Amino acid sequence: MTKTIFVLNGPNLNLLGTREPDQYGKTTLADIETMARETARELGYAVEFRQSNHEGVLVDWIQEAGTTAAGLVINPAAYTHTSVALHDAIRALAIPAVEIHLSNVHAREAFRAHSYVSPVADGVICGFGAHSYTLGIRALVSKL
Amino acid sequence: MTKTIFVLNGPNLNLLGTREPDQYGKTTLADIETMARETARELGYAVEFRQSNHEGVLVDWIQEAGTTAAGLVINPAAYTHTSVALHDAIRALAIPAVEIHLSNVHAREAFRAHSYVSPVADGVICGFGAHSYTLGIRALVSKL
Amino acid sequence: MTKTIFVLNGPNLNLLGTREPDQYGKTTLADIETMARETARELGYAVEFRQSNHEGVLVDWIQEAGTTAAGLVINPAAYTHTSVALHDAIRALAIPAVEIHLSNVHAREAFRAHSYVSPVADGVICGFGAHSYTLGIRALVSKL
Amino acid sequence: MTKTIFVLNGPNLNLLGTREPDQYGKTTLADIETMARETARELGYAVEFRQSNHEGVLVDWIQEAGTTAAGLVINPAAYTHTSVALHDAIRALAIPAVEIHLSNVHAREAFRAHSYVSPVADGVICGFGAHSYTLGIRALVSKL
Amino acid sequence: MTKTIFVLNGPNLNLLGTREPDQYGKTTLADIETMARETARELGYAVEFRQSNHEGVLVDWIQEAGTTAAGLVINPAAYTHTSVALHDAIRALAIPAVEIHLSNVHAREAFRAHSYVSPVADGVICGFGAHSYTLGIRALVSKL
Amino acid sequence: MTKTIFVLNGPNLNLLGTREPDQYGKTTLADIETMARETARELGYAVEFRQSNHEGVLVDWIQEAGTTAAGLVINPAAYTHTSVALHDAIRALAIPAVEIHLSNVHAREAFRAHSYVSPVADGVICGFGAHSYTLGIRALVSKL
Amino acid sequence: MTKTIFVLNGPNLNLLGTREPDQYGKTTLADIETMARETARELGYAVEFRQSNHEGVLVDWIQEAGTTAAGLVINPAAYTHTSVALHDAIRALAIPAVEIHLSNVHAREAFRAHSYVSPVADGVICGFGAHSYTLGIRALVSKL
Amino acid sequence: MTKTIFVLNGPNLNLLGTREPDQYGKTTLADIETMARETARELGYAVEFRQSNHEGVLVDWIQEAGTTAAGLVINPAAYTHTSVALHDAIRALAIPAVEIHLSNVHAREAFRAHSYVSPVADGVICGFGAHSYTLGIRALVSKL
Amino acid sequence: MTKTIFVLNGPNLNLLGTREPDQYGKTTLADIETMARETARELGYAVEFRQSNHEGVLVDWIQEAGTTAAGLVINPAAYTHTSVALHDAIRALAIPAVEIHLSNVHAREAFRAHSYVSPVADGVICGFGAHSYTLGIRALVSKL
Amino acid sequence: MTKTIFVLNGPNLNLLGTREPDQYGKTTLADIETMARETARELGYAVEFRQSNHEGVLVDWIQEAGTTAAGLVINPAAYTHTSVALHDAIRALAIPAVEIHLSNVHAREAFRAHSYVSPVADGVICGFGAHSYTLGIRALVSKL
Amino acid sequence: MTKTIFVLNGPNLNLLGTREPDQYGKTTLADIETMARETARELGYAVEFRQSNHEGVLVDWIQEAGTTAAGLVINPAAYTHTSVALHDAIRALAIPAVEIHLSNVHAREAFRAHSYVSPVADGVICGFGAHSYTLGIRALVSKL
Amino acid sequence: MTKTIFVLNGPNLNLLGTREPDQYGKTTLADIETMARETARELGYAVEFRQSNHEGVLVDWIQEAGTTAAGLVINPAAYTHTSVALHDAIRALAIPAVEIHLSNVHAREAFRAHSYVSPVADGVICGFGAHSYTLGIRALVSKL
Repeated sequence: MTKTIFVLNGPNLNLLGTREPDQYGKTTLADIETMARETARELGYAVEFRQSNHEGVLVDWIQEAGTTAAGLVINPAAYTHTSVALHDAIRALAIPAVEIHLSNVHAREAFRAHSYVSPVADGVICGFGAHSYTLGIRALVSKL
Repeated sequence: MTKTIFVLNGPNLNLLGTREPDQYGKTTLADIETMARETARELGYAVEFRQSNHEGVLVDWIQEAGTTAAGLVINPAAYTHTSVALHDAIRALAIPAVEIHLSNVHAREAFRAHSYVSPVADGVICGFGAHSYTLGIRALVSKL
Repeated sequence: MTKTIFVLNGPNLNLLGTREPDQYGKTTLADIETMARETARELGYAVEFRQSNHEGVLVDWIQEAGTTAAGLVINPAAYTHTSVALHDAIRALAIPAVEIHLSNVHAREAFRAHSYVSPVADGVICGFGAHSYTLGIRALVSKL
Repeated sequence: MTKTIFVLNGPNLNLLGTREPDQYGKTTLADIETMARETARELGYAVEFRQSNHEGVLVDWIQEAGTTAAGLVINPAAYTHTSVALHDAIRALAIPAVEIHLSNVHAREAFRAHSYVSPVADGVICGFGAHSYTLGIRALVSKL
Repeated sequence: MTKTIFVLNGPNLNLLGTREPDQYGKTTLADIETMARETARELGYAVEFRQSNHEGVLVDWIQEAGTTAAGLVINPAAYTHTSVALHDAIRALAIPAVEIHLSNVHAREAFRAHSYVSPVADGVICGFGAHSYTLGIRALVSKL
Repeated sequence: MTKTIFVLNGPNLNLLGTREPDQYGKTTLADIETMARETARELGYAVEFRQSNHEGVLVDWIQEAGTTAAGLVINPAAYTHTSVALHDAIRALAIPAVEIHLSNVHAREAFRAHSYVSPVADGVICGFGAHSYTLGIRALVSKL
Repeated sequence: MTKTIFVLNGPNLNLLGTREPDQYGKTTLADIETMARETARELGYAVEFRQSNHEGVLVDWIQEAGTTAAGLVINPAAYTHTSVALHDAIRALAIPAVEIHLSNVHAREAFRAHSYVSPVADGVICGFGAHSYTLGIRALVSKL
Repeated sequence: MTKTIFVLNGPNLNLLGTREPDQYGKTTLADIETMARETARELGYAVEFRQSNHEGVLVDWIQEAGTTAAGLVINPAAYTHTSVALHDAIRALAIPAVEIHLSNVHAREAFRAHSYVSPVADGVICGFGAHSYTLGIRALVSKL
Repeated sequence: MTKTIFVLNGPNLNLLGTREPDQYGKTTLADIETMARETARELGYAVEFRQSNHEGVLVDWIQEAGTTAAGLVINPAAYTHTSVALHDAIRALAIPAVEIHLSNVHAREAFRAHSYVSPVADGVICGFGAHSYTLGIRALVSKL
Repeated sequence: MTKTIFVLNGPNLNLLGTREPDQYGKTTLADIETMARETARELGYAVEFRQSNHEGVLVDWIQEAGTTAAGLVINPAAYTHTSVALHDAIRALAIPAVEIHLSNVHAREAFRAHSYVSPVADGVICGFGAHSYTLGIRALVSKL
Repeated sequence: MTKTIFVLNGPNLNLLGTREPDQYGKTTLADIETMARETARELGYAVEFRQSNHEGVLVDWIQEAGTTAAGLVINPAAYTHTSVALHDAIRALAIPAVEIHLSNVHAREAFRAHSYVSPVADGVICGFGAHSYTLGIRALVSKL
Repeated sequence: MTKTIFVLNGPNLNLLGTREPDQYGKTTLADIETMARETARELGYAVEFRQSNHEGVLVDWIQEAGTTAAGLVINPAAYTHTSVALHDAIRALAIPAVEIHLSNVHAREAFRAHSYVSPVADGVICGFGAHSYTLGIRALVSKL
């Protein structure tokens, strides 16, 4: 059985560490990728780490995860709140999926409190910055 | 005048027959394409049959249909409920358009009851599985 | 097994072809009955075709269909939007039921977007004028 | 051309003058019929005055008015707030229609503030007790 | 003074015991009538037991109860949620009225949580199957 | 006792007959004043006829009517939908008040369906053009 | 098997008979306890009758009932409308539970129309004063 | 500086493992306490582990944590959705606080989607059963 | 007649002066008690001053005030927005009650704008810090 | 520095004591002015006391207060609920402002529960009749 | 044809540059008038520049513009969000009208997101400070 | 420093001038590009002018603008109303951004009244056809 975890990142996360440090801190997405790989390796897993600003690309990748990965960790960013396509793609998965967010979405604008992804994820983690990724990987592995 | 009907399919429909058979059955999108072509041929039409997970690609194809097709049958899937871009693209068409769905969207989650596409479609058909496509083609041809 | 399809029509449909031709066209309900019978006969079925302005009469007839018909095609007209009684009557049916509308209800007043019938129908067809009836019969037969 | 005005009364109005005098006064529906006939006669019209507790019967009568009367005065009572069927029946009329109410519906429960009839009536009069009928007939005649 | 209790039943209750046994059990309306008569007789009352699918007929019967009965037990079924006409008819009664339901309406679809009848009934009982009727009769008699 | 009726007109009604004839017709406010005076005189009353674009002035005049007039007919125009001040001023009156509108407000934009004035008026008349004023005066006199 | 029924009473019910007699009558909670014990004894059951103003205490007692009682009758009073904790406690019960209210909550303020308890109760009875308790016990026993 | 983490549990969590295993599994709260202590010890922390059905007791304990603990992990259970008191108590803390839930609250009833606690917590974790506690402790320690 | 005023304080008010000084200032609850006693003594009254984090305890104390105090001043804090139990307890009082708040609740989060207590209080004072208590006592005495 | 307090009164308050004594009592606005002057004088302040039915005049006066007064006490009456102009005028003030109401607005119609003024006032006092003014002046002075 | 543009300013704009410089900057309304006149003169137009705190005065001036001006630029300030009277006055204009705002109203309180003026204006410009006026004049002239 | 302005165009704008001329006129996007370049050149700026039907591509380009352009003018078309991704991308910009629309979105369907882009744009201009672009460029330059 595959030992790869897909870690997918939604729109604007490629800017991490360079814009709005008050909201998101100075850690870059590359830093997070390193942390994620390390945590996964300790637990015996490899990581496929990707980012896209395109909703359709994320749907493509979720489908790909469904046939090649052991599990999915996804930070859908802005598409969390607007994408029924992500909802449908994740619901169709036979592997577990964990939704994560860097910031505590419940402490921000009202429109960020609703997630189309949460009802079809196995669990949700938010508010711990880069650490949300390592917690998400641990949480996912506990489901495998 | 052109005798081609565009049949466009939205996100995750490429998974048909392989995932969630309780909701959508075992028929694949290729099976549906065959059925659609057959029905269209009986009525004297060819079919251009496509699927994409990308909202923008669907908009591109609808615009293409507007200049090269006799009519449009579209299963917008998840974008049904979230895409004003599809709404605008279909509204701009001078050819008739029929919206179809495999399942009865009114018997599912509340957020599936609203369609941005329906107000600009000529008609809507849902709930008949793969047969929604052949009914949709018949319905479209009755408008031509 | 019975080979009769009930085709039931709700309030004001007896006026078809005589009032508001902009909205509904010039075809009368008698014209539609002829078309419906013809389509059904091609598919090997007879049609019991009725119209009433009374919600209670429609409930009576749906119950009658439940014990004597192979399936139900219903255009609930105004009662679509207000009748829990029709909802309950159709839900209690063991035979398939198809909801149809002449016009595209999603392109009209907001209160016509909600249907108490749709969640308990097998499928829904709207927007194709008299042709909605023949499509509805075809769709129903595909369920038998 | 016909010189008959239909005056139709909805559910429970047959109880007028016998129940809830605080809300509706002691005048009976027969008293109101007399007043209505007198006012209409002064203006050169006859009155067809009817009451029913059945939504379907009221729809039947509105359709009848459409082919035999010069105009319609209707007190839809409880069906004011729930009947899309009355809405559709009145909208289909080519003759003018006036909606009346005995009490001021805007000073009562919130659910009485919405009327399905008002948007398709030519005008609305409420709050003047039995006098609402004579004003309604005058208003109707001003439209003829 | 009259010793008759009206027990009125709304739409689709004539199907009881024959359809949807998961929701409503196997007891028929005739069984319930027997139980109701027995309970009433113990308490010194006769029962007038009726069922109709027609909102208007139910209004007629409530008015009849108002002049000939000691009290009213009513299971308005689907009209519970849509009928201002029943609301008005019951509000006009000088005799006590008890609203009953077989199932616990609060544990079903959201639209069944609202009742137009409850605010004008003396009390409400739901969720005890056929026993709701005998409890309703006891409750009514406690008001007489 | 005074035999004067105040007829007050809200904002933009001074434009009547000169702007938007599709919505309001060609009759001017001066024409309406003449019709109102005539109707009142027939019924034995004089008319104090005024118009203002100022909410505060209308409140002043309603208070003045409360001490010098037999009754009030008011077309609050735009302030119908936004003025709690008019609501309070009319509620404080010991004389009857009738709310009128030229057009059928229920057949226009949604925000015109709500009136702060209606709950405190004795009755409401709308949709009869200039005739709404003469009907309003008749209705008012029936209350005196 | 245990033959004890828990009858639990929520906040302010200890004041019964001493405050707001217009709303709740002069019967005290002690009177009700006597009636409840008598009815239960006739049906072969003992009653554990308690009242608390504390939401947490009520949760404790519901849990206690779950391990020691045959069934639960609860008048949650104010906590009906605000307590998800009661909802969860009752949902976790393996014994039947009946929700009762002295007054008809549907005829009072809007916020009393919603109950967190009803969806997880087996049935609901309201509006019969102290008699709601004896009906509740009978209803409960019919479930045992 | 103190090395104690408060782990607080809200109403009905004492039933864990004994009721509704479909929803919450067979692990008891004692099992979870053991897991929590172990994880904390690995990270160099002690755990103060408590449960109460009383909102006020939870507020008392949160205040106590504020003066004696290094951080707070809280599963507010039902009070998540109804308690402004918990919101205020947590907001007043100078130490970090993590909100956890056993089940994925977003995949359950609509009223469980709103949390009064989330906007004042540092982060939120839900859906991983007993593992939510160990993840919560890890997350908390990453904030210390 | 008693000359004691109950001054009750809701959850988290025991933290006053020690937490969130930006929102609530540095005055402690003990300081406020001193000010309240002084103001009451000038007006000839004694003060019973208490604080609890428990909704049920506050209900107990309000009931106690009802039998032993001349009037009630209450700062319900978080329970303002969630407690129907406090609403019912205060409504049952025969003595006057004044609701107070330290901060201007209307200038904070939206959920603080609604109070279950206000509709049953005699008056409300908010926004004046500790001075809200002395104003509340003066206001209460003006009602005695 | 100026020692003048502006006390401004909104629409219909000039009627105080002469209309609706059930709601507002028999005290006139002149009586209140006397009380206000006396309280202010005790505290070392003069009062500028005015009333207008005009929203614009009130805005003018609030601006005038901003340049000539030490503080503002305002009873905005009906404009409380509809005036963003008052909101903006008060928000622009550098002097403190207290909003007062004679009656408890929270115990009246729902539309009186929302205030555009409260979020920009320093504090709010309602429900103490004429005494609301003297309390308002005391509260204001405590801010100076 | 007239070459005058009316530039109208709503409530509190006379305070510009003196209050709340964080929100609106230090430019005064006189400065803006100068800039507006200059821009208009370049484009061959004169400017009639006015400000009022009175809704009615603004309606008067809009009507005056309708008969004497080539076009209208209006900053309705607070009346943007509450005035149907402005809506009606502008809708009645035969000349073009441009709505402007100094600040970006969409980035402020929720109640500022709705404008009664926008649906009847030809276009809207907001967020550019004093420059909104010169852009508004350019935009208006492009419509002439 | 760069002197380039990005002018980005959302879905379906490539159809401008060829479809729905009633709504958008006959000017093509190429015509608009010419006008935009000319206006920018007069002001000393170059223009990078692009169009895409893909939300993700627009996010990519906004990010590109953030590192290479002096400012952004964007007509997000349909994505205005649905894209949190655009919201986040624009919020992350350190350069000014102006949102523009050809038509007055406030005078169209209700769903076009809400913009996810407006709260993070510096200003908004709508309703001036192709001229919205030249005004947008002027407005942007005034911010530089």
